[in-house]
Amino acid sequence: MNQIVVGIVGAGQLGRMMALAGIPMGLRFEFLDSNPQAPAASLGKLHVGSINDASALAQLADAVDVMTFEVENIPADVFSAVADKTVLAPSAKALGMAQDRLCEKKLFHKLQIPTARFAPVDSEQDLQEAADDLGFPCVLKTRRMGYDGRGQVFLHSDTELSDAWRKLDSNELLLEEFVDFEQEMSLIAARNRSGATVFYPLTTNTHCNGILHTSQAPSGNTELTAKARHYVHNLLDDLDYCGVLTLELFVTSAGLLANEIAPRVHNSGHWSIEGAATSQFENHLRAILDWPLGSTAVTGHSAMINFLGCLPTPEQSLDIPGLHYHSYDKAARPSRKIGHATIVAEQPDACEQAVQRVLEFYTPAT
Amino acid sequence: MNQIVVGIVGAGQLGRMMALAGIPMGLRFEFLDSNPQAPAASLGKLHVGSINDASALAQLADAVDVMTFEVENIPADVFSAVADKTVLAPSAKALGMAQDRLCEKKLFHKLQIPTARFAPVDSEQDLQEAADDLGFPCVLKTRRMGYDGRGQVFLHSDTELSDAWRKLDSNELLLEEFVDFEQEMSLIAARNRSGATVFYPLTTNTHCNGILHTSQAPSGNTELTAKARHYVHNLLDDLDYCGVLTLELFVTSAGLLANEIAPRVHNSGHWSIEGAATSQFENHLRAILDWPLGSTAVTGHSAMINFLGCLPTPEQSLDIPGLHYHSYDKAARPSRKIGHATIVAEQPDACEQAVQRVLEFYTPAT
Repeated sequence: MNQIVVGIVGAGQLGRMMALAGIPMGLRFEFLDSNPQAPAASLGKLHVGSINDASALAQLADAVDVMTFEVENIPADVFSAVADKTVLAPSAKALGMAQDRLCEKKLFHKLQIPTARFAPVDSEQDLQEAADDLGFPCVLKTRRMGYDGRGQVFLHSDTELSDAWRKLDSNELLLEEFVDFEQEMSLIAARNRSGATVFYPLTTNTHCNGILHTSQAPSGNTELTAKARHYVHNLLDDLDYCGVLTLELFVTSAGLLANEIAPRVHNSGHWSIEGAATSQFENHLRAILDWPLGSTAVTGHSAMINFLGCLPTPEQSLDIPGLHYHSYDKAARPSRKIGHATIVAEQPDACEQAVQRVLEFYTPAT
Repeated sequence: MNQIVVGIVGAGQLGRMMALAGIPMGLRFEFLDSNPQAPAASLGKLHVGSINDASALAQLADAVDVMTFEVENIPADVFSAVADKTVLAPSAKALGMAQDRLCEKKLFHKLQIPTARFAPVDSEQDLQEAADDLGFPCVLKTRRMGYDGRGQVFLHSDTELSDAWRKLDSNELLLEEFVDFEQEMSLIAARNRSGATVFYPLTTNTHCNGILHTSQAPSGNTELTAKARHYVHNLLDDLDYCGVLTLELFVTSAGLLANEIAPRVHNSGHWSIEGAATSQFENHLRAILDWPLGSTAVTGHSAMINFLGCLPTPEQSLDIPGLHYHSYDKAARPSRKIGHATIVAEQPDACEQAVQRVLEFYTPAT
């Protein structure tokens, strides 16, 4: 049999869940990760190496029919350099855009997607001027490499500016007005190489110390859903995007604001494994292989609870009706994402009650 | 992390789908199979060896926390001999019963489960007497090792008896009256070690040269479902059964007749991967680990089409709404089960139309 081989940069839980979605369809997987015990390592061939290493990326690219990623911090120029060896999906351009908060914000503006006010900060003087303009509270962020709440400092007054400037220690920063949001949401979409596009329902998210804690879908708000889909559609078309893309959003009194883009499958879409006809992982693979995309119809009301730092037992978890238990085969460390549960119920109330039951016996270790 | 290790005798597509259901829950798998390229080989540790070899089974048993099987032809005494090394589920007793059509029939009688009339045949004279008693047409079957239509000879008159006797070349046979069935069905259930039991809906099956071709669920016949569940419940309790059990049934003008038991996950339950809240594979694992069982509620109307001898392309298959594509990573040989598709639709009509679309471009190679 001539099997299609998919290369994934990174072999964490996202790569693991991609492989678990692709193996049933007859796909083979190769990964690049510096950790020989990475969660996806047992589901394909692991190339042990750094995602910053051009020769390691080239070796993976040479071995596969299409190459994608589950981590966003691959240097975009290193990724771009292997474009002559295999199909890259999403593109190096999309990766590069999502790596830089300033590029992202500029793209939002170009596409008339509302976002928090911001100013680029390249010097301490820039920071003072930006703070004067935006007012307090505001948030100083690194343009690159921020995730799960890292690379951010909240500012409440002028006296904190110097410390914040020294703490982030970078000349590529961004100051954003503080968004007093009512809710955090995300919209996940998949677009294949031919341009076919599907949208998952708008998902409502809660965080715990900056790390995603729970997601619930569908949100049921048709007006916000239509707006968010419109924004994401424009992003996908502008980037000639291929694969799954996630847009994180804030719901504010002034309406929906775009927060940031993740050019990949996303933690807030894990519920789709059991809660949608086709999971985000399967649709990402179908998209990058230019196969027809699968239905995103929901099978019920879903909630996902991240297991951070420790796992509940399968016995107590699976006693809850509609609960599906996921362990990523990772060593436990405080705040580390090591598993999740998805609950699917016919009615939102039953879903919410099941979540409360989990939270009675499960407390994240942060 | 201390992972639970599940041992599976056989590493074919059933073992593969069990592993794909168990890896997300954090389970590890070890297999015993004589084929180093078996479909499940890449999803765990493969012990290459014969399932008839007591030392190979002992080696697997020593390595695992619980041992199950995906093939029924393990010598029951060899399986039983490793019971002191690990937990066996289902038990050697259940395996032995299902291996012998005569024991199976006697159990059906004991539990008042209707079945075709039959007579044991240990000699050519027995055969003549049994044929006189049951009449023609009738079917001569080996008591052991028959599957997918093998080990069976249809008989229409006295003149065929000698040839049939010589052809099956065994002194352990069974003559059964020919069942002029209207439909073939199966009922799959799971029972954990604590005795908790769940039932999947009654499934309607069609065969092609003795090999399962399509399955559709749920059948929607509440009267037959209640009867079939009652029969299976009695079987599970009598055997103090642990794991998934399948009962194959005939629908006749005289009512429901039990055909045979498969003490394992079954081809007619593959639709449950996408068509039920919890698949037969996940519930088998939950049962043998004595975890709470998952809901068997259907997510729609499902149909499964076996890919025999050749595969359609993913591109043309996935263009059909609601279709999920499965390839077992097996070399193609005529009549060999090398993959399947499941279609899940909201309405039975849409499901049936999708099946017809598949059958327009896909013909099994038999």
